[in-house]
Amino acid sequence: MSETGPRYAAWTRTTNHITRTMVGVQPRGMINLAGGLPAPEIYPVAAVEAATQRALKRFGSRALAYGPVAGLPEMRAKIAERFSKAGRKLGPENVLITSGGLQALDCIGRVLVETGETILAQFPTYLGAIDAWRPLKPRYVHLDWDATVDAQRAAIAAAKFVYCVPNFSNPTGALVPLEKRRALLAAAHAAGSAVLVEDDPYGALFYDGPATPTLFDLDAAGGDDVYRGPVVYLGTLSKSIGPGLRIGWAIGAPEVIETIALAKQGSDIGTGSFAQAVAVELLDAEVDRAVHDAMIATYRKRRDALVAAARAHLSLRFDFEAPVGGMFMWLTAKDPAFDTDALWQIAFAEGVSYAPSSVFDSTGAVKNAIRLNFTLNEEAKLVEGACRLSRAVEKFLQRP
Amino acid sequence: MSETGPRYAAWTRTTNHITRTMVGVQPRGMINLAGGLPAPEIYPVAAVEAATQRALKRFGSRALAYGPVAGLPEMRAKIAERFSKAGRKLGPENVLITSGGLQALDCIGRVLVETGETILAQFPTYLGAIDAWRPLKPRYVHLDWDATVDAQRAAIAAAKFVYCVPNFSNPTGALVPLEKRRALLAAAHAAGSAVLVEDDPYGALFYDGPATPTLFDLDAAGGDDVYRGPVVYLGTLSKSIGPGLRIGWAIGAPEVIETIALAKQGSDIGTGSFAQAVAVELLDAEVDRAVHDAMIATYRKRRDALVAAARAHLSLRFDFEAPVGGMFMWLTAKDPAFDTDALWQIAFAEGVSYAPSSVFDSTGAVKNAIRLNFTLNEEAKLVEGACRLSRAVEKFLQRP
Repeated sequence: MSETGPRYAAWTRTTNHITRTMVGVQPRGMINLAGGLPAPEIYPVAAVEAATQRALKRFGSRALAYGPVAGLPEMRAKIAERFSKAGRKLGPENVLITSGGLQALDCIGRVLVETGETILAQFPTYLGAIDAWRPLKPRYVHLDWDATVDAQRAAIAAAKFVYCVPNFSNPTGALVPLEKRRALLAAAHAAGSAVLVEDDPYGALFYDGPATPTLFDLDAAGGDDVYRGPVVYLGTLSKSIGPGLRIGWAIGAPEVIETIALAKQGSDIGTGSFAQAVAVELLDAEVDRAVHDAMIATYRKRRDALVAAARAHLSLRFDFEAPVGGMFMWLTAKDPAFDTDALWQIAFAEGVSYAPSSVFDSTGAVKNAIRLNFTLNEEAKLVEGACRLSRAVEKFLQRP
Repeated sequence: MSETGPRYAAWTRTTNHITRTMVGVQPRGMINLAGGLPAPEIYPVAAVEAATQRALKRFGSRALAYGPVAGLPEMRAKIAERFSKAGRKLGPENVLITSGGLQALDCIGRVLVETGETILAQFPTYLGAIDAWRPLKPRYVHLDWDATVDAQRAAIAAAKFVYCVPNFSNPTGALVPLEKRRALLAAAHAAGSAVLVEDDPYGALFYDGPATPTLFDLDAAGGDDVYRGPVVYLGTLSKSIGPGLRIGWAIGAPEVIETIALAKQGSDIGTGSFAQAVAVELLDAEVDRAVHDAMIATYRKRRDALVAAARAHLSLRFDFEAPVGGMFMWLTAKDPAFDTDALWQIAFAEGVSYAPSSVFDSTGAVKNAIRLNFTLNEEAKLVEGACRLSRAVEKFLQRP
């Protein structure tokens, strides 16, 4: 901006440029390992076309009208039905439909946090969450999964809410073990009036065994009343149907959902009725479940290919573990002083992009790791990408 | 909330409940004059179905993928083409696609305003704008269209941005005359580095003559370069195709657009590719223009019906003028102490809802006027609604 341009809010000078690179138009030949993008060939385009026809027949002009701020009644009821189980009753009042999972984070931040207040969050963490909360200038305290229940209780009580991604954390791909989940949940109950945001976009992507129960699963409060526990569970169609629908949901205690909807009202008045009507038809037809098997088979092969390629090409310089699910692999440089921000341009010139660790950290200080995505590209490209990255690393280390 | 519930941010205690009533599910038999809702029978449902088929053929899996934060290139180019004219060149870099017009207001507030800073805005004003900016706790200064250019220049220079709705202001339906538009634009240029947000959802809804040029039309900067003037012009498909698509746009100087996109990135990563792809096809086929004639004919008759009904039933207690366009009529009680907040429940019980003036005012202090919508309901219902409202007023005045 020129010096005579508008005076922008201070947070605009601290944004990340990686998200835009990831979702933007890619240069020809670039291998994009940076994004959190599904495999486009799995998107159920024909099923979406059929669902749109059914939705316009069923909803008629309602599909083009404003809907209630919290979501179409049919869509809220559908999500409530999908996530109800023995001991955990859900009604539409437990559900807020959002424009993708990120919007839920944005709205949660706005209704809970005054400028400068504390968020207790898993780190490294989802860069979209950091982006969403940037205007609030929050103080971040790092969630310690290994702390005692009592230490966690104190940390939870001192924060406005807790943010975590127990299933295949973005960016590290780590799976939080069952016992640590139980401990966090116990701490939240002990803290009283806590809000425990469980972001679960990758929960259906277990490649090597059955799913670990979510915090929300573990918090089956029982009884005849609808759910009123501390967990606010976030889900999305982005990793099953496709992110282009921008359909997500927050499930939680009715009072919390109603308050989050206040921020939703001031953000976009409501998620598009058109996309919601199509989503209801897709869920009624279980299209998300139909694509799930193909997705798991494809992603598992790609995970295997990237892990093998990393062992072949990157293990000299990086430590890593094979992820058991999700979309990402996390590689930490053996040299703690390695600067993956500085490597980025060289890798880009070699034709490969990745996400540097600095963007997953609110301070930007952690520079010695990278996140690689394995879901977008087919195996040969993943191998080629690892190869290019390896070459970029060596060139980077040889620079004067 | 119970006393042991989460501690929400202070702004959540100041929200309006009218928007949710307007877009929510209506009680049976209620005549809704409160909303800013289009006539549902005009929504081009069949054209949207055909456009979706074409869009999925043309965009394929791209329609279900993430797109660039600022919008699909085809959609940005289409809007740039639509609003380019002699002397005003626009490129995609001048355009941000938003999830409805309200999201543009939300994002503009976030990138320009630090908590407590000043917004210079027309009052009474769009309640969605007040909702969007509530978390920022802005100081509002009232834009005076009658002030001298020099006084306006000073007011503009002291604010972070200017917000106005020159075409059929929501809520008053007033049309700002050409000369006052020229004066505001001159003041913005004189102020230097101003951002002049012109919200124009109703600009196509002139019923009694040709459209008045917008601030954006008047600011034809000329030359070979793309537009770099102070106006940020907001448009939407909500009043032509339908609000259920949630497609709007902001057009302005590339640097301002790029900065607003930072907030968009943290809000929803981008408007849904699916809805955008359908919108591109709808605009290519000029569906919005095809419905325009029917819309004008329908809305003109309804405007006439409501004005006549108001003269017959409400002129004893209210002053008003017939609006020459838009969706709203504004009625000011002859008694300055009349409280339209207090009237609301009685009117609701009589089976009619309206928007009370307090919600269009950041302080909530202006209580003696109401906004009536004339686009949603057919003529007979508008007459019946005015009749019910008149009865509610008399009951209200007779209460002990």
